[in-house]
Amino acid sequence: MTIGIIGLGLIGGSMAIDLKRRGFCERVLGVESDPVSAEAAAKMGLADEIVSFERCVDGSDIVVVAVPVGTASKMVPDILDRFKAAGAADKIVIDVCSTKERIGLETKYHPCRKQFVSTHPMAGTEYSGPWAAMPNLFDGRACIIADAAESSPAALKKIEDLYNVLNMRMLYMDSSAHDLHTAYVSHISHITSFALALTVLDKEKDEKHIFDLASGGFSSTVRLAKSNADMWVPILTQNRENILRVVDTYIRKMNLFRDAIDSFDEDAVRELIGEANRIKKIIR
Amino acid sequence: MTIGIIGLGLIGGSMAIDLKRRGFCERVLGVESDPVSAEAAAKMGLADEIVSFERCVDGSDIVVVAVPVGTASKMVPDILDRFKAAGAADKIVIDVCSTKERIGLETKYHPCRKQFVSTHPMAGTEYSGPWAAMPNLFDGRACIIADAAESSPAALKKIEDLYNVLNMRMLYMDSSAHDLHTAYVSHISHITSFALALTVLDKEKDEKHIFDLASGGFSSTVRLAKSNADMWVPILTQNRENILRVVDTYIRKMNLFRDAIDSFDEDAVRELIGEANRIKKIIR
Repeated sequence: MTIGIIGLGLIGGSMAIDLKRRGFCERVLGVESDPVSAEAAAKMGLADEIVSFERCVDGSDIVVVAVPVGTASKMVPDILDRFKAAGAADKIVIDVCSTKERIGLETKYHPCRKQFVSTHPMAGTEYSGPWAAMPNLFDGRACIIADAAESSPAALKKIEDLYNVLNMRMLYMDSSAHDLHTAYVSHISHITSFALALTVLDKEKDEKHIFDLASGGFSSTVRLAKSNADMWVPILTQNRENILRVVDTYIRKMNLFRDAIDSFDEDAVRELIGEANRIKKIIR
Repeated sequence: MTIGIIGLGLIGGSMAIDLKRRGFCERVLGVESDPVSAEAAAKMGLADEIVSFERCVDGSDIVVVAVPVGTASKMVPDILDRFKAAGAADKIVIDVCSTKERIGLETKYHPCRKQFVSTHPMAGTEYSGPWAAMPNLFDGRACIIADAAESSPAALKKIEDLYNVLNMRMLYMDSSAHDLHTAYVSHISHITSFALALTVLDKEKDEKHIFDLASGGFSSTVRLAKSNADMWVPILTQNRENILRVVDTYIRKMNLFRDAIDSFDEDAVRELIGEANRIKKIIR
């Protein structure tokens, strides 16, 4: 089998590594629009060949679209068009994006919708580009399959096989549930980290040594602020309504803390912390 | 030498382990007011003996006060009183608290002020109690010595030796700079984590499976929300003014994000993320 991977960054590149070495495919065709990344990916051997978009779609059995979600939601319908024009009824395209509703809408009435499987492998780091690709990235993590009933059983089965090779555990939900849940347990974390970084960087302008005291706890809460704008701008735009709801709740909670501290209300602070501590039972 | 450690939790217990096994002291006298923790500490052998406050102060060359900062800022002057009453001019007391201004004020005019060294070993985890104590906790981390000129050179030297045995790198600053800096690079992180936990836990009441999708990024930003109220209520109270300033800046930054997302202003979102990304150059 030949896998085409469009976008050889953290996710696409890491998939390329494991799908090849674990024998899921014989050949990987890679597409990378950024010339520097393309050269790096070629040098690292992430793909057997770096090809054009057209050659990739025409020459692959499964096409993986691993580009930011704004581009992906336009690219998947184009690929389905090309499948249709070529009469390639057995080919499959998947995306790997962090928001699912928009891409679901963009493909909903496409005559080849059944050849598309909407997936979100929930793995990653705060780094990006082919340099960030690594083996074993997906092992043991969750992979969401969104709107599975919209894909053909055969396509779905093949993609489940692919994610089984990556050792992912599959979860099934519709795309609107996906986008709501990820707003709470992934997207908001990035915004809180970005805001934290901005807060401290602002202060650093006057206090040069402020980071000398940065603790492990600080690094852990701020590390997502390294995340890439090309990836996150479209996520925040596409999942706008869910995210606004979470951000508003979050700002309300921050204000509860603020006011309790401001009014020296130790009991209220204690109660808020006690309530937050319930997270212990849920997160390791 | 005999070290007295008052409070055998994460910090006190971990100090006890390494100071003893690395040969800095022959004997550790422990004080633990909570009976369950006292029994656990005794069973784990964190101290050679669990004793009363008075026996600990009278029988130790160096007393380490490792209790929450509200209690510590009252306890240190009591210990200095007891040194004075006993004419014990060579004994030393240190605290290990995360806020330094208040304890500095409480001891400022004490006739035995020079026997007190105000320290903040910046190491820890989100866990607490004797169960959280571990070897090597302090290795390679920063330790702040606040208002070093207020301590006698001999006392200071002995405490630098103690922290050298714990492999800490010393930083010197006055207590008000310390409290400002820790508000930015430690205390705010805890509040953002608490608020994040509260936000998601609230939603979990309606959406039972919301944590199924919790990513590594989420765990990393929320882990500090497990932190203990007994420790954090007094920190947030004592460092109130610095913390309110940071929280207000932080809420402003969150609102910038919120408004940029709300008004579909992708350029503004991109700019905010790009600015936040500067954290890359600072935090590993």
